[in-house]
Amino acid sequence: MKLTILGCYSATPRAFTNPTSQVLEIRNHLFLIDCGEGTQVQLRKNKVRFSRINHIFISHLHGDHFFGLPGLVSTFRLLGREKPLHIYGPKGIKEAVTLLLKLGDSWTNYPLLFHELESNDSEVIFEDDRVQVSTIPLVHRVYTNGFLFQGKPLPRNLDIEAAKSHGIDASQFNNIKAGKNGVTADGQEVPNLALTFDPPLSKSYAFCSDTKYSERIVPIIKGVDVLYHESTFLESEAHLCERTKHATAKQAATIAQKGGVGQLILGHFSTRYKSLNLFKEEAQEIFAATSLADDGKHFEF
Amino acid sequence: MKLTILGCYSATPRAFTNPTSQVLEIRNHLFLIDCGEGTQVQLRKNKVRFSRINHIFISHLHGDHFFGLPGLVSTFRLLGREKPLHIYGPKGIKEAVTLLLKLGDSWTNYPLLFHELESNDSEVIFEDDRVQVSTIPLVHRVYTNGFLFQGKPLPRNLDIEAAKSHGIDASQFNNIKAGKNGVTADGQEVPNLALTFDPPLSKSYAFCSDTKYSERIVPIIKGVDVLYHESTFLESEAHLCERTKHATAKQAATIAQKGGVGQLILGHFSTRYKSLNLFKEEAQEIFAATSLADDGKHFEF
Repeated sequence: MKLTILGCYSATPRAFTNPTSQVLEIRNHLFLIDCGEGTQVQLRKNKVRFSRINHIFISHLHGDHFFGLPGLVSTFRLLGREKPLHIYGPKGIKEAVTLLLKLGDSWTNYPLLFHELESNDSEVIFEDDRVQVSTIPLVHRVYTNGFLFQGKPLPRNLDIEAAKSHGIDASQFNNIKAGKNGVTADGQEVPNLALTFDPPLSKSYAFCSDTKYSERIVPIIKGVDVLYHESTFLESEAHLCERTKHATAKQAATIAQKGGVGQLILGHFSTRYKSLNLFKEEAQEIFAATSLADDGKHFEF
Repeated sequence: MKLTILGCYSATPRAFTNPTSQVLEIRNHLFLIDCGEGTQVQLRKNKVRFSRINHIFISHLHGDHFFGLPGLVSTFRLLGREKPLHIYGPKGIKEAVTLLLKLGDSWTNYPLLFHELESNDSEVIFEDDRVQVSTIPLVHRVYTNGFLFQGKPLPRNLDIEAAKSHGIDASQFNNIKAGKNGVTADGQEVPNLALTFDPPLSKSYAFCSDTKYSERIVPIIKGVDVLYHESTFLESEAHLCERTKHATAKQAATIAQKGGVGQLILGHFSTRYKSLNLFKEEAQEIFAATSLADDGKHFEF
């Protein structure tokens, strides 16, 4: 699982900071999460192949998470895209993108499929044999979802050496891969566990931005390998959280601790702070395994 | 008159090139012309003070001329703007910006005034005592206008030394500034021309992007000091102009020559070309006073 932060600063694009967008590579999928203005430029700078993006997840319809989407949709057309593009986001996203394409008489040549979200409960919004994606209902000034990406359990891998040493015939290998026990030439049954390796562990990633502190998400993100949680402010500005519906670094760390997650990544920083290390220090008092996001930073898990 | 090119490349924002946007400073006005994605970042990089922008002119609703506008409107709000902002552009621009603000529940605190354009004839769309702005109907795939910015003739400046030498009393100075003749103590009339300096010349700028070759604009841009005309292609790709409704460098130069303009600036380059000097060379065969636009380039006239 690889995560590339394209932008992690709040509110507006600036000369050297970008609004929210990130790319998650998991089980051969490349998911784009949020799409602030300038995301297509950040994709280019970070050498992400546009053709690998088939699913875009938009948390909410504030500009710093969404205003790069119409341009990206248009650029896909100019690049000659033919594959369908799936866009998941709050109700209204289809009307917005469609209106902009209509005004420019710039309809896509490829299928553009919107999956509009309205539920206030967590729901599965994408699933195939490799990955499942669910919403994480957040609490912000407008309807907002985080997203939980979970690799599905993989089948056990055949241990050919073990099978040979038990004298198992190759004709049984597909059955063994499918979970069945083996049978030797003289009719002895060999348990599947003795003929297979453990599969690679399935990783999980939870993206939570933007939101005020909400313990309601704890059961949903319980035990994820990596939690990205917004921390727009430090505790010294905690008084701004109620009105703006944002969280502090300490609050993000508290959610990470209560959720028993593997690692916490902080992001969505207000640009009012001189040093981002203050965010890390504040969070680490509660949750040690805390990292800072930064534009162009890559994480591998 | 000063012109700052924020972006002058066609189609999409890329890692090191920006879509169309420019800032024209004329008679103390700072006009923003077009607003492709990333314009607000380019404004910051070029140190343009956001608070000086009160009028934005949008030629057409293709993304590379327009998708930076919703974000800029939102950023003005975050910066605490209170002054009205006037936006001039094709019919539909109000619906688009308004829908995006509504979906984000992010209404501006300042008055946002739309002036929607529908006419296929040139019309005056802004006028005060210093400047007049008119549309230049262009021929593109969607409804498109260029814009003609004209400084108005200034009053003649009082020549105090001349007035004194003629023995004109200071009580007449306001009348003389207003164009009246002076009268000496012994009743002799002195012509206004002898008591005043010529005013600074009024400059004019015509912005024409995007458009196919159209001689219909020649009477409108006749004699302007500076013409910016798109040249998406070189003549070697002239066959692409009919379908895409764009122009070549040679065509832009032909318009400049027929219009008898002072200078030509080329822009809206396709990114397919390795060297932009080919554009300049092609145009200069027809019109010598040709310059190339480039992102971040400043012109002073």
